[in-house]
Amino acid sequence: MKLYRFLRGDREFYGVEDKEGALAVIKGSPFGEFEKTGVEYKKEDVKILSPSLPSKIIAVGLNYKKHAEELNMALPEEPIIFFKPPTAVIAAGDEIIYPEMSKRVDYEAELGIIIKHEIFNVSKENALQHILGYCCANDVTARDLQKKDKQWTRAKSFNTFCPLGPCCVDNIDPDNLKISTRLNGKAVQSSSTSNFIFKVSYIVSFISRIMTLLPGDVILTGTPSGVGPVKKGDVLEVGIEGIGTLSNKVV
Amino acid sequence: MKLYRFLRGDREFYGVEDKEGALAVIKGSPFGEFEKTGVEYKKEDVKILSPSLPSKIIAVGLNYKKHAEELNMALPEEPIIFFKPPTAVIAAGDEIIYPEMSKRVDYEAELGIIIKHEIFNVSKENALQHILGYCCANDVTARDLQKKDKQWTRAKSFNTFCPLGPCCVDNIDPDNLKISTRLNGKAVQSSSTSNFIFKVSYIVSFISRIMTLLPGDVILTGTPSGVGPVKKGDVLEVGIEGIGTLSNKVV
Repeated sequence: MKLYRFLRGDREFYGVEDKEGALAVIKGSPFGEFEKTGVEYKKEDVKILSPSLPSKIIAVGLNYKKHAEELNMALPEEPIIFFKPPTAVIAAGDEIIYPEMSKRVDYEAELGIIIKHEIFNVSKENALQHILGYCCANDVTARDLQKKDKQWTRAKSFNTFCPLGPCCVDNIDPDNLKISTRLNGKAVQSSSTSNFIFKVSYIVSFISRIMTLLPGDVILTGTPSGVGPVKKGDVLEVGIEGIGTLSNKVV
Repeated sequence: MKLYRFLRGDREFYGVEDKEGALAVIKGSPFGEFEKTGVEYKKEDVKILSPSLPSKIIAVGLNYKKHAEELNMALPEEPIIFFKPPTAVIAAGDEIIYPEMSKRVDYEAELGIIIKHEIFNVSKENALQHILGYCCANDVTARDLQKKDKQWTRAKSFNTFCPLGPCCVDNIDPDNLKISTRLNGKAVQSSSTSNFIFKVSYIVSFISRIMTLLPGDVILTGTPSGVGPVKKGDVLEVGIEGIGTLSNKVV
């Protein structure tokens, strides 16, 4: 199922894309019971929103071996986590604003996990059943500030630094998906989530042992190698097999 | 003005403490216009809640010179920021849960800033007018995990690791307040916010240049020297001049 959140005029809806390009509006909650209303909109006639409005976004650093190597960082024994703020979230098609404070901003393609239920301390065996689905994410990072601060928070937290989208997909194997970034049409990241150091079920279980996860919360699962800088005017496309493409222009 | 958020039965209210121990219920919003309803409850007859339900909590590390020295950390040129998640917030009187993942949990007394308006990119000259008030905070930290991870997020993010309270006070000079911690009645931290490396107006302006701050968002301003470990059964009291005492038991 491909679930979209979108605006039609000034009203917000969730809809399911059963037929390519057509969004069937649902009533009820995607986090609980829902059914189709019978109303359908063409995708081109709506404004796509981020698939979730998370209360928090937890990101895992260094979850692909080759990316840790390219940053000269040691492989972690346990996931290294950090937060991005909800105010950083933008949708597919929205613009990434290059902040004045930074002279070096990088793209980072990531698989995003959207949590379905309120959970605390779940086992990795039970973790997947509490996931609503998956989306493309771009963990935009001010690399110069990440190096300067040592703590990654400032570098990861500028407004517009968390594109999520275009939709939320549930019937895929999250640990075996091709993932890529195209920068102005040219492939710059290309890997598979089968290269994860920590798999999705382990990550969700691990984080749930630290903090309660709420419906809509988002977990970013780390980026593969090939990160690099962007400049104003660039167009970034994060593509994940079975989900689609998250495209954002840098301004 | 001392503003409290509290439960009376299962209903939530904001109230102002004009007379010691009496909470005058308000209608309207503390973030906008409000007035007293005429209803008053005794403080002992209500359950005190955290003064805010923040969408995000931004904390400043190393904002007192002596604390940076006791952790053998260099003084920052700019504020080093990190997040604590909203799920970590508890109120005065609530219990801090010692997590299984850690063997070393420390208290950290801090002045908390509660934001009044949605703001982005405000100058330090204009920052103070966007603050609702100040509260006591305890930036509870799993010191062993902070050292292990290097990134501070996991160490700072366990459920119950962000006591805030007991109330929000607006008519005080935030850069000149005595701040202390008592551990089972014994003084363990004692300083003044006049020792801040970065003052409140600068901190709010700095963070607002990175991300939009929303009404209710909380900024923690760093802890003075004297941090140390707690064990189950300990009672922590963070006291700040003009605000009151935030007391929490470790279980």
